[in-house]
Parts: sequence; C-alpha cells; structure tokens
Amino acid sequence: MNKQELIIIKIGGNVIDNDKMLDEFLTKVASIHQPKILIHGGGKLATQLSVKLGVETKMIDGRRITDTETIKIVTMVYAGLVNKTIVAKLQSNKCNAIGLCGADAQLMVAHKRQHPTIDFGFVGDIDSINASFLSELLKSNHTPILAPISMSKDGLLLNTNADTIASSVAVALSKDFKVKLFYCFEKNGLLKDINDENSIINSIKISEIQQLIEDKTIIDGMIPKVQNIKQAIENGVDSVTLCHASNLLDLINENSKFGTTFKN
Amino acid sequence: MNKQELIIIKIGGNVIDNDKMLDEFLTKVASIHQPKILIHGGGKLATQLSVKLGVETKMIDGRRITDTETIKIVTMVYAGLVNKTIVAKLQSNKCNAIGLCGADAQLMVAHKRQHPTIDFGFVGDIDSINASFLSELLKSNHTPILAPISMSKDGLLLNTNADTIASSVAVALSKDFKVKLFYCFEKNGLLKDINDENSIINSIKISEIQQLIEDKTIIDGMIPKVQNIKQAIENGVDSVTLCHASNLLDLINENSKFGTTFKN
Repeated sequence: MNKQELIIIKIGGNVIDNDKMLDEFLTKVASIHQPKILIHGGGKLATQLSVKLGVETKMIDGRRITDTETIKIVTMVYAGLVNKTIVAKLQSNKCNAIGLCGADAQLMVAHKRQHPTIDFGFVGDIDSINASFLSELLKSNHTPILAPISMSKDGLLLNTNADTIASSVAVALSKDFKVKLFYCFEKNGLLKDINDENSIINSIKISEIQQLIEDKTIIDGMIPKVQNIKQAIENGVDSVTLCHASNLLDLINENSKFGTTFKN
Repeated sequence: MNKQELIIIKIGGNVIDNDKMLDEFLTKVASIHQPKILIHGGGKLATQLSVKLGVETKMIDGRRITDTETIKIVTMVYAGLVNKTIVAKLQSNKCNAIGLCGADAQLMVAHKRQHPTIDFGFVGDIDSINASFLSELLKSNHTPILAPISMSKDGLLLNTNADTIASSVAVALSKDFKVKLFYCFEKNGLLKDINDENSIINSIKISEIQQLIEDKTIIDGMIPKVQNIKQAIENGVDSVTLCHASNLLDLINENSKFGTTFKN
C-alpha cells in the first residue's frame, strides 16, 4: 500500500522575527492540502526578553548554557507566545492547528545532555517521539505546531534544537507516512559555486554527500546539518529539502528551480 | 445509559504562585482516577513580569485593560510557562496531560468584549467550546490542561477569565459526561456565619441561592460567582463545589466536611 504523503516543515528565526514574512509564510502553509507538521524555533525574541529581564546569556567554551531562568524564558517565548501566535494565525486561515511542546502527551521525551566537562543546564537530547499521537492528530485533520521544548522522564522542561526535533519527528512518522521534510533557511539552497547565487544544486543523493564534503562544496556549519539529513533519510524519511521559505509551496508542488533536495 | 463522571477543576493564583502547594496539588490531581480537565489562571507571575518589563497595568473605571503588550505577556505566562510547568509535573506523576489554549484546535472561540464606554482591549467573551475534541482527548485517556487564553474567529488571542472558561467547558461537556466542577479558592467553603470558620454550608440547592443572597449569607464578589454556578447547573452541570485545593481529593470521594456543593 502506498503511504500517504506528510509534509514536515521547520522554520527558523528569520521568518519568525519578521511579522510580515511570518504572515505570508503561514498563509502558504495553510494552503498545503497534504497532512503537515510545522516545527518552529524562537527567533530573537527569547534573547531580547532575556536582555530586558537582565538575564545574561551564559556561554562555556563558546556553547550556550540554559540555566533556570533561561529555560523559563524559552518556555514562555517558544511554547507560549511564538507557538500560540502561529496557531491563531493558521486557524484564521482555516488550518486546524494545534500547538504543542514535548511535555504535552509525552510528544518528545529527552534526557539532559551529558558532557564530560560542560554542564549545559536544561538542554535536552531526544530519546523518543510519540508518533502514534501525532498520527492520530493528522488523521483527524489537525496540523501539529511543535515548539522546541522537550521533557525528561522526571518532568523537567528542556531546551532542544528545533532542527533535531524536525528530523526526529520525520523519522518517527516515516513508518506511517511518506515524509517530505523541508528546512526553511535564509538561502535558496546549496550552491555549487559559493560566488554564484544561480548555481543551486537541486538534487543530491546521499551517496554523493561524502564527495561534496571532500571537494568543499559543503563546508563549516553545513556539514553537521547535512550529516543529520543523511541520517534522517537512512532512517526512512523520503526526502529532505533545504530552501527559502518563499519557495516552499512551489517545492512541495515539485515546480521550482530553487531549493536543494536530498534523496536516497 | 448513565453518563461517565468527569471532574473539571479550576485552580486559582494562590496555588499557582506557591511551588510547594502546586506540587502537592498536582500530585493529588494525578491520582484522580476519573477523566479530568484542569483550568488554571496565571497567578501573580504575569503581573510580576509586566512590572519587570516596565509594562504598566492599565485600568479604566477600576477595570483592567489588556493592551497589545499585556496580551503578549499573558500568552507567554499562561499558555507557556504556567501551562507547560503543570503539564510536565503531571506527566512525571503518570498523568497523561496535554496543555492547550483556546486557539489550539479552536478549543475556545470568543469575541472581543463589547462595552458602550470602555475598550477592554484583548479581552474575550466565550462563544463556543470544541467539546467534541475535548471528549476525544478524554476518551483516549488524556488530561487537558487549559490556559485562560481564547481566540477570536479572525485569529486574535484574547485574555479570558478562567472561572468563565471552567463553567463554559463544564456546560459544553455536560452532554457527554456527568460533570462535577470544582472551583478551588482560598477558603474551605461558604460560611453561614462569617465569623465562624466551622460554619461551612456543605450543600446548597440552586433554588435556595436567592434566599442566601437576600439574607446576606452570599455577599459582594461571591454574588456573581454564585450566579455563574447557578447558570452552569441550569445548563446541565451535575454539581459545582467551592473548596480549598487541599480538600479536593476528599471532596471528589465524597468524604469531607469541607467545601460547599451546589446542586439542582
């Protein structure tokens, strides 16, 4: 039996921080006729709120620490303001959105990050996704909107990377759906030539990734991102696309020269 | 056919503002074996955050106004921090909680309050409750935790009184369930003699309410509360109990001399 298509979209800070872009984006998301899940980050709002409240951003060895005050702030901003603003906007566009974090119905259970020398504080690495509850919601025509807050077994709220949540959710739902995962970022896709915005690579097989890293087409911060993409596809996700939010609809309809799609 | 019992509980600020009381209370809630829904206010946290952020509490004619900045703050605090903290705590006590506001799955649709002389800002009066979605969640053994934020049809988030939400939800679910609604407040119940803490009136028929108002047993701020209770029972709610949070379990098990229960 052919699996039904499921669109999973992760949007980043650049869309969330811009009211007009967010509005336009959510109008597009509402028009997607397939079942869909949206995962959002928090943008600059959490940092801005921390500054206003005089809560310092703590760093150890260049890594951000989530202390007691910071987990409260990100829970307020991500699971509260950003999540519910997105839900309300989608509802007004006739999309039956439901906003959730990892604690709700045990959607995303995680453990506090372990590290030999750094205590990251309230940062969580995902152990499990409640795929059956997400499937039930999708089958009853709901659109889950997920905030990047997970929960430990003993009930601690934990700050969790939204990219990782997107790939974990995509993998978990691959058993029931043909999952197409879209990471919306600031660019139109991976470039063959970094100096030529028109040199977008539209399609990459995961067997080609190693070569692209070796010839330095994929560099720096993109390397771990692409390794995660590879892992998601190896674990059942049908395709993963890196694209600009403005091209999302065309890409879903397979009618765009922008965006880079990874496949098996 | 006998309807299944449903326990709906509204907790106020005094419980939410005290970590120890909240922990104890949620441990009790988790142990209730009936289907249950919890509605919470926001306590003093929203006011404290407003002060820290320099957002003034606006009042007109002694009535609180919810302006653009304030609706953001209450969405963060109620639907974010307080809601998710309660959910995580319940989950760690093996209660499958799911935290929602009125925008999620169109749970509570409202309109902006109309008043001839006062613009209350982002304050909502409830038009409808999505009882069928709440019923589905209850049937699949979830415990909905509702934040007092509703949504207008055009996607505005609106601040809404938690007591009113509790009675609206109770009435809406009365078609499917035998609903017992509990308002937890600072006192042990209504007193026959205001100077005698032991003079609790355990049981009041709604036909007796008018007399109790006339003889000044029910006074001041209690009068609108009790009128709402009467209306809830007239619209199908089985019973409404005013009690202290610490007596909730005993009252559910019908084994307490504290609390005041209103019935038909």
